[in-house]
Amino acid sequence: MKPSEGRKRVIIEEIQPSVDAGRYPAKRVLGDTVTVTAAIFADGHDHLGARLLVRHHTERSWQTQAIPFTELGNDLWSASFTADKLGLWYFTIEAWVDHFDTWVSDLQKRLASQADGTQDIPLAMLIGANHLDAIANRARSADRKTLKDAAKAFRDLAEVKLPHYKSPVTSDLTALAAQYPNLPYATRYATELPVWVDRKRARFSSWYELFPRSASNTPGRHGTFRDVEARLPEIAAMGFDVLYLPPIHPIGVAFRKGKNNSVTAEPGDVGSPWAIGAPEGGHHAIHPELGSFEDFNSLVAATRYNGLEVALDIAFQCSPDHPWVKAHPAWFTPRPDGTIQYAENPPKKYQDIYPLNFESSDWKGLWDALYGVFKFWVDHGVRIFRVDNPHTKALPFWEWCIAEVHKSTPDAIFLAEAFTRPHVMYSLAKAGFSQSYTYFTWRNDKATLQAYFEEICNPPVSDFFRPNVWPNTPDILHAQFQVADPAQRRSIFMSRVILAATLSANYGIYGPAYELCEGRPGPTMPGKTGSEEYLDSEKYQLRTWDRSDPISIAPLITQLNRIRFENIALQSNEGLHFHPTDNDQLLCYSKTSVEPSNPDLLNTILTVVNLDNRYPQSGWVDLAMDKLGLPWDEAFEVIDLLTGITYPWQSGRNYVALDPAAPAHIFRVVRK
Amino acid sequence: MKPSEGRKRVIIEEIQPSVDAGRYPAKRVLGDTVTVTAAIFADGHDHLGARLLVRHHTERSWQTQAIPFTELGNDLWSASFTADKLGLWYFTIEAWVDHFDTWVSDLQKRLASQADGTQDIPLAMLIGANHLDAIANRARSADRKTLKDAAKAFRDLAEVKLPHYKSPVTSDLTALAAQYPNLPYATRYATELPVWVDRKRARFSSWYELFPRSASNTPGRHGTFRDVEARLPEIAAMGFDVLYLPPIHPIGVAFRKGKNNSVTAEPGDVGSPWAIGAPEGGHHAIHPELGSFEDFNSLVAATRYNGLEVALDIAFQCSPDHPWVKAHPAWFTPRPDGTIQYAENPPKKYQDIYPLNFESSDWKGLWDALYGVFKFWVDHGVRIFRVDNPHTKALPFWEWCIAEVHKSTPDAIFLAEAFTRPHVMYSLAKAGFSQSYTYFTWRNDKATLQAYFEEICNPPVSDFFRPNVWPNTPDILHAQFQVADPAQRRSIFMSRVILAATLSANYGIYGPAYELCEGRPGPTMPGKTGSEEYLDSEKYQLRTWDRSDPISIAPLITQLNRIRFENIALQSNEGLHFHPTDNDQLLCYSKTSVEPSNPDLLNTILTVVNLDNRYPQSGWVDLAMDKLGLPWDEAFEVIDLLTGITYPWQSGRNYVALDPAAPAHIFRVVRK
Repeated sequence: MKPSEGRKRVIIEEIQPSVDAGRYPAKRVLGDTVTVTAAIFADGHDHLGARLLVRHHTERSWQTQAIPFTELGNDLWSASFTADKLGLWYFTIEAWVDHFDTWVSDLQKRLASQADGTQDIPLAMLIGANHLDAIANRARSADRKTLKDAAKAFRDLAEVKLPHYKSPVTSDLTALAAQYPNLPYATRYATELPVWVDRKRARFSSWYELFPRSASNTPGRHGTFRDVEARLPEIAAMGFDVLYLPPIHPIGVAFRKGKNNSVTAEPGDVGSPWAIGAPEGGHHAIHPELGSFEDFNSLVAATRYNGLEVALDIAFQCSPDHPWVKAHPAWFTPRPDGTIQYAENPPKKYQDIYPLNFESSDWKGLWDALYGVFKFWVDHGVRIFRVDNPHTKALPFWEWCIAEVHKSTPDAIFLAEAFTRPHVMYSLAKAGFSQSYTYFTWRNDKATLQAYFEEICNPPVSDFFRPNVWPNTPDILHAQFQVADPAQRRSIFMSRVILAATLSANYGIYGPAYELCEGRPGPTMPGKTGSEEYLDSEKYQLRTWDRSDPISIAPLITQLNRIRFENIALQSNEGLHFHPTDNDQLLCYSKTSVEPSNPDLLNTILTVVNLDNRYPQSGWVDLAMDKLGLPWDEAFEVIDLLTGITYPWQSGRNYVALDPAAPAHIFRVVRK
Repeated sequence: MKPSEGRKRVIIEEIQPSVDAGRYPAKRVLGDTVTVTAAIFADGHDHLGARLLVRHHTERSWQTQAIPFTELGNDLWSASFTADKLGLWYFTIEAWVDHFDTWVSDLQKRLASQADGTQDIPLAMLIGANHLDAIANRARSADRKTLKDAAKAFRDLAEVKLPHYKSPVTSDLTALAAQYPNLPYATRYATELPVWVDRKRARFSSWYELFPRSASNTPGRHGTFRDVEARLPEIAAMGFDVLYLPPIHPIGVAFRKGKNNSVTAEPGDVGSPWAIGAPEGGHHAIHPELGSFEDFNSLVAATRYNGLEVALDIAFQCSPDHPWVKAHPAWFTPRPDGTIQYAENPPKKYQDIYPLNFESSDWKGLWDALYGVFKFWVDHGVRIFRVDNPHTKALPFWEWCIAEVHKSTPDAIFLAEAFTRPHVMYSLAKAGFSQSYTYFTWRNDKATLQAYFEEICNPPVSDFFRPNVWPNTPDILHAQFQVADPAQRRSIFMSRVILAATLSANYGIYGPAYELCEGRPGPTMPGKTGSEEYLDSEKYQLRTWDRSDPISIAPLITQLNRIRFENIALQSNEGLHFHPTDNDQLLCYSKTSVEPSNPDLLNTILTVVNLDNRYPQSGWVDLAMDKLGLPWDEAFEVIDLLTGITYPWQSGRNYVALDPAAPAHIFRVVRK
């Protein structure tokens, strides 16, 4: 069957950014220049025109300001718009054959050859006049006369026989004519491509995780929100901007876990905050020992006052004592004996946890209730959610729920705590999670670190997946940290947080345990070799931390956050590039960004890390100068932002030596 | 807004083959096993099931034979179907959570741990029985009883208290249960992906181009179809299977080009066959001097009888004398002086050619007429069309026209003669062209040959673009062939046809000029350096060829076509792999295919070509053994199919020396 209009000759393909051909939004942040590229071409050699059509989802029609494309060569074109509003945007492309522009270009060639007498210039002028008349008929009345006058001038020129013709075409005329393409013959790309615009913290954030119940500083006394509030200035001084709290809800009693994950709790054991729900309430309640809603509101406000934000942990699972178990049995899985199915990974049982059933006959009620949890805490001033195990909840639920929260709260940020197969992790990000935990913890050597960050920091992945890298979490004390020698242990804690803070614009640490280089592993689970659990894990008991211990690396962390704050190169992952070194223990990479205040000014951070926590390592770094925004043969200076020392560096190979006690350089490239 | 069914938990992504997300069909040939891969996953750890839904476009519903997927690991799955009918096919994927299969897997783990007394096996049996009941209710009545009986057996087992339980699950039972997924909760991929199935010649063909008017063997006498018929046995003996004729229509007189592209024709000059149309007729007519329709029909039949097929050249352009110029002036571009716009590339004029105007107000009439040209020659027995300059006709026209021809004639093959920008060439292939001319002619050194063939012989390009590579055409005598020394010239003609015939499953030569190593360049065009035209080009005059000239490489070409015919590895481009050599003048590559008659039998052709036509070259080839289908440490033999000599080769590095007089080895790998 023929198309309704066969005269649309332009093809539009390969549009970027585009996630799964527009099935999911690409992610950007407020103020970003969103650059759209596409292959735009037609048969033959006619000149083309194209424009970007853009609208915020609240706008019913495309923005009237035309955004023209410019040609990059090889049929690739580029245009951009500024994402000046949070939320969902759409864009598409319209492109057409520009007969007048083709004619202008041909005319230059005819005029250049007119001396040989083969060119019929007057006839060419008449053809140009006809093009202009057609354009005039499409033009706004204000422009019509200008175009008609130009057409008449062309015709007048065709009437006279001159020994030498000059072009009557001005750049004003071509610019005016370009405003009136013949849209009925223009190709409109069939899909409207979505872009989700977050606030900047979705791309650049520094997280500090802390168990409020361990914040009391008095051994044995259950910490409170007020205790956390007292610690805020210190955390703010370290330079963090997100304070992440594990679940704050009442904790179940049935099958409560004891210290060190013991299956039998002793009297007084506080249980795991992730076993949510007790007679006092579930996901809408606060654990009584942490404080009241008034205390919580006060903490939220004080956090903001200190330049941070609270991130709440949302874990959609229930202890057997959760009110939903009685009120909504349909949201769980019944067993033939009338009991409810607890979490299992046969033969292992997790009887303190009832998973929610996403194949419930009342799935609509369940979805609404889970959405209601986010909405409830949004209404209490929370805008950042760290979501526990999202990969065990239906993916279509997340796509709906996050969109639903974003409708009224486009500044909400969701971090997906999923350590599972790559497709599932990426799918959660596509479904709407703003940030994602990563495999960073298990990427420990040079080759795997480089390969992994090259994968996640470049399109297509970087268009939808924003890494938030954590050297440790309460669940993961990687074997590399389980080192007896204090100096070696301190070195690996230092190098891993340097990697996290400089490789990824979003990073976080699990609080005092990290500063104080806590490396004692907990009991090994049956059937496993080694443990990634902490000894005396805060997941199951109160802890008191001696933050004055001289092993603390808090001063380094403070420096890192300051460096991140002062250097925009570290505030996104876009310019990440790895530079070869001749030593497998030395990892070298740079990030380069343009200062928004001055497009000519580049900020480049060049980091070299010694991955060996036992021995000094030295070697040669081979710089890709263009990735530093430098001419290939430039000599330049680098200043180590950790020490303040300046070094003369040069194009190509440079020598580096790093001791485990100071395992990295974080250089800023000094431009002349 | 919530989806209509929120219990569909499975995500399906990354489906292959897929050209622009299903916008265009992927190409395969009759009898192909079409392997479909996809990422299929859900939240959590439940087992999944998936099936491939397939239909030929003539079928209104999916084929009833269920095609199950198998898991490849990392959430990737694969299934396949046999393309046993020409034409357009559609496929899509349906996938679901398989609760029974998950239960079976969990049961094995429970049974393995039953000794420790922690596992409630009877309760597990009751859960399994409930799954089976649900499956039974979905089952065909013939299977229902079996499933119900199994459920009862499970329940009976739950009633007894045994010291040790054994699994009551049989492989028959799991296979039966797998036939009845819970389809209301299954995810169906939203797009039906198209696959176009051609006959095999679309993928594997050997073309011989010949000017019929030069076929007379008598200097000065205009050749005829009968003369071509007389030459058929000789062309067939060389092993070609497509005989491609330049346009056979009456040739315009107005502005006819003379010998060597002179702008003024002398009396008796025969003109260019691409200046189509004269008072005798246009695209539906035959040049009177070539013969009658009866002669043409006879040639078509004789060609088939000799194991070849005629390919016609369809050039959609008109001489000023073409009947359409008067009958359909709207199909051309009028100029203000009342004349019709001839072809131009200012300041150059091609006054013997009127291009068709694809922005004609009568574009529908024009499209129908052009389609009618194909239909006319299809009705005269032609099934292969070499389309001249398709990139100067609107791309949407081609998509419609080729689909329209294919509706009634799915065995029609279209070769796109486009030497233009990559996007346009690929877009023509997406629009439906079965084969495409390539940049092969201008890829002359090792690095560019390898990069180019890696691009066009791998997905995504190979899913829609089938190269047909030509060392020469009547338009292109590459500078490399313009060599005075006969031995050197013969060497380059040999090596280039060897490359063409072994790199690409489709290849062709422009006839006697190639066998006879014709390398004399024509006049250089104004403003150009060098010429790719032939001296005394057949495009503008009759030629007589002395095929007994001892320089002829016809014997080599005959060998090449026999080798291609006898080795399926050379009949597709799928298994192409380049092996490193330590000499930039030695190009080494292999192709490996499975013998369809015996899936365990591999056919591997390993080619080494000396790219230097002046000096012998030698060096070491470093074999990727897995690409030859050999164990990494195997010693093996290779037989040179050009000489019959056998060599012992080994894993890893092997020495090769090649003289310009015999510039290649074409080895078949001999398997033990």
